Amino acid sequence: MTPPSTPPIFDTRFQDRLDDLFRWRRDVRRFRTDALPAGLLDRLLTTADTAPSVGLSQPWRFVTIDDPARRAAVRADFEACNAAALAAQADARANRYAHLKLAGLDRAPCHLAVFVEPDPTQGHGLGRQTMPESVSFSAVIAIHTLWLSARTHGIGLGWVSILDPDRICTIADVPDSWRLIGYLCLGYTEEEAISPELERAGWETRRPTPRLSR
Amino acid sequence: MTPPSTPPIFDTRFQDRLDDLFRWRRDVRRFRTDALPAGLLDRLLTTADTAPSVGLSQPWRFVTIDDPARRAAVRADFEACNAAALAAQADARANRYAHLKLAGLDRAPCHLAVFVEPDPTQGHGLGRQTMPESVSFSAVIAIHTLWLSARTHGIGLGWVSILDPDRICTIADVPDSWRLIGYLCLGYTEEEAISPELERAGWETRRPTPRLSR
Repeated sequence: MTPPSTPPIFDTRFQDRLDDLFRWRRDVRRFRTDALPAGLLDRLLTTADTAPSVGLSQPWRFVTIDDPARRAAVRADFEACNAAALAAQADARANRYAHLKLAGLDRAPCHLAVFVEPDPTQGHGLGRQTMPESVSFSAVIAIHTLWLSARTHGIGLGWVSILDPDRICTIADVPDSWRLIGYLCLGYTEEEAISPELERAGWETRRPTPRLSR
Repeated sequence: MTPPSTPPIFDTRFQDRLDDLFRWRRDVRRFRTDALPAGLLDRLLTTADTAPSVGLSQPWRFVTIDDPARRAAVRADFEACNAAALAAQADARANRYAHLKLAGLDRAPCHLAVFVEPDPTQGHGLGRQTMPESVSFSAVIAIHTLWLSARTHGIGLGWVSILDPDRICTIADVPDSWRLIGYLCLGYTEEEAISPELERAGWETRRPTPRLSR
């Protein structure tokens, strides 16, 4: 992958295909168990390193979770947090909530925990004095970069947020300063769809959002 | 833009072009003053609405800032925050910091403030009980979606984070609950480069990030 020496021009065909990618991305919870192609995760992580970051701080930290005991502990934490979320649902929606599949932790072949170093030396503090959350935001964009790239290789990604972030830090045994941004499942998907699973399950509907002018 | 009825297959040419897009994206601070093409901002905002969001909550809120007095107030806030950041720099780096151009607020034809509704009714709270920051993260991904799409149309984006977020909420006169995620400048760029401006200015160097396995 040698970068071109002149800036690329993106034609209308690419623009339209990129729109297709955005529309077909999906947050996947139903995975096949077969492994990712050899070398792909490494390529995706290299691509993620090209994400923008505040002050060029690159504060994202990627940790693959392969150990069966650690994976079991993550699944147990998800089950506990999800049970608490179910209990907090209004009666009218609790039954619907209980039937949702909200994580692919059971079958996804690749588990990737993503953390942020909230006070990185890299970047020398630039751009994050008034909005320190911009450091976490950089890690979020690295995840999204990886997510889009994975989808073009036929690999789905599911972002699990129904977890106790401190507990995941403990399970993953990461440095004390790191904070969890997201726990990702990756793998081939059991199905493809242009609409979000939460929409197909009747939970919520995607819609145009309001826009203001000032 | 009718969506295809069957899932798209992304070939190696598209995968490579997407990598080009990630590498040539840039956080732009040097803009031409000519306006965006008619209809493009609307298209970009529609594309941003396809971003993933926790619980399908779509919590991002886009506000174009056109009023000259509001724009002047934003520039003044940036100048104040940037002066404070300069004063906080170590002596060894202060001179270098002072010479960086850290915002394109002076010339960019389009100013877009992006807020989050931290407690949206849409989504019914799903997925954000243990990690409420996932709501803000959704808005970050909407920005990144817009950013990538803009670049394919030849439009650069610069994310300004050296601002007092509460002050920007006041200037933009948004609902009390909203919080600033980022203030974006959009427009044609004065230059294209494959390396970040902070790297070319000798501030920081992009590098491969550490990866752990557990």
